[in-house]
Amino acid sequence: MRVLGILGGMGPLATVDFMSKVIAHTPAKQDQDHIPMVISSIPQVPDRTLAFRGEGDSPLSAMLENAKRLAVAGADGVVITCNTAHLWFDEIQKSINLPMIHIVDAAIEKAIEKVGANPLLGLLATDATLASGLYINREVKNLSGERIQVRWLLPTAVEVNEFVMPGILAVKAGKIEEGQELLIRAGNCLKQRGANALVLGCTEIPIALAGESLGIPLIDATDALAEKAVAWSRCYGIRNE
Amino acid sequence: MRVLGILGGMGPLATVDFMSKVIAHTPAKQDQDHIPMVISSIPQVPDRTLAFRGEGDSPLSAMLENAKRLAVAGADGVVITCNTAHLWFDEIQKSINLPMIHIVDAAIEKAIEKVGANPLLGLLATDATLASGLYINREVKNLSGERIQVRWLLPTAVEVNEFVMPGILAVKAGKIEEGQELLIRAGNCLKQRGANALVLGCTEIPIALAGESLGIPLIDATDALAEKAVAWSRCYGIRNE
Repeated sequence: MRVLGILGGMGPLATVDFMSKVIAHTPAKQDQDHIPMVISSIPQVPDRTLAFRGEGDSPLSAMLENAKRLAVAGADGVVITCNTAHLWFDEIQKSINLPMIHIVDAAIEKAIEKVGANPLLGLLATDATLASGLYINREVKNLSGERIQVRWLLPTAVEVNEFVMPGILAVKAGKIEEGQELLIRAGNCLKQRGANALVLGCTEIPIALAGESLGIPLIDATDALAEKAVAWSRCYGIRNE
Repeated sequence: MRVLGILGGMGPLATVDFMSKVIAHTPAKQDQDHIPMVISSIPQVPDRTLAFRGEGDSPLSAMLENAKRLAVAGADGVVITCNTAHLWFDEIQKSINLPMIHIVDAAIEKAIEKVGANPLLGLLATDATLASGLYINREVKNLSGERIQVRWLLPTAVEVNEFVMPGILAVKAGKIEEGQELLIRAGNCLKQRGANALVLGCTEIPIALAGESLGIPLIDATDALAEKAVAWSRCYGIRNE
């Protein structure tokens, strides 16, 4: 099995959550069946959202340093356990000579698996992830190299300010029920506008919406990345390495 | 802050549990306040219990290889997130030139903090951990270099076979309630024989006994190690590095 390198620490709990999802996706009867991982959980990386807004230092050099820790520790490939940090994905991939799996690719592939081709996907994510185009601009290709077609539905600015961001902040503060109520309202807005599925593109959102039924599939991007990483380590079903 | 190296993967869930406890013990208002960690969670290490019984390969060379991954990735010190794997602690410490924190030291210090000097400690652990002397033979010294006196109470062979091991196996199989009932019975035997506190020297046991009241303090060795590791990273309260 290939050694999965996890560029984590952004934040540390999201890293633990991702590792738990990797373990849950691994068919294992004993310790030795689980996939090998090396993890960098070094949280002293400048804030990604502030950097995106032009209000803080770039996290790139710290992320590169931590990616290199994974390379020397024997990682055969690397994933990043933070949506916003994927804004620097291409620059990291250029600097380390290892395959990487992108969280948006994993989320879109999972969405197509659940709802079929050419879906209309509602996106719940932070203001910075939405505004950066991280999801909506990503070109995902299928095994034949053709671009996978998806259409996106985003929350309005009012919905972001009144439901999505307060919902995420409530979860971060441990107020899960309050966050759940707000995020369900945001999700229902996207559903009413015709979304076939909701992509949860922020690590906090699945914590509140896990097991919730909004009547359409919920795609946990972190979980999709974990599942794809397990498949990659076990050497099947992954292209473009 | 010093970079904590975690020699994990034995098993992977215990590694995630330890990381969660590290995060819980860290006073943090934002990501950047958390301690930096690098983790090797590579489960392809020969079974420690089988090796102890002379029925399987030694895990030492695999553990050494993984400890070296941590060293090259920038760890300033190392902990091992498996009780039984501590049987090879001294050999690992000799091979890597880094300070290490021993889980038994952490557990004993926490027990003394909770119940005072010269305690009579009940020990709940696997058959292999009990039989190896990992806990009962460990010499723990205080800041003045004097040996800390502790006395131990162990479960009888019948209690090990009827309560402790079936309890641990029930937890491993996800039957928490069944495991809880068995482990409470084992704990009560030790309490009735006069234990001042119970040391939970196996990662599965705290999962079933968390929050249980047996009328005496329960010392979760993994949690004690996590707390001590956080203090070490933040550079206070640790001797002998």
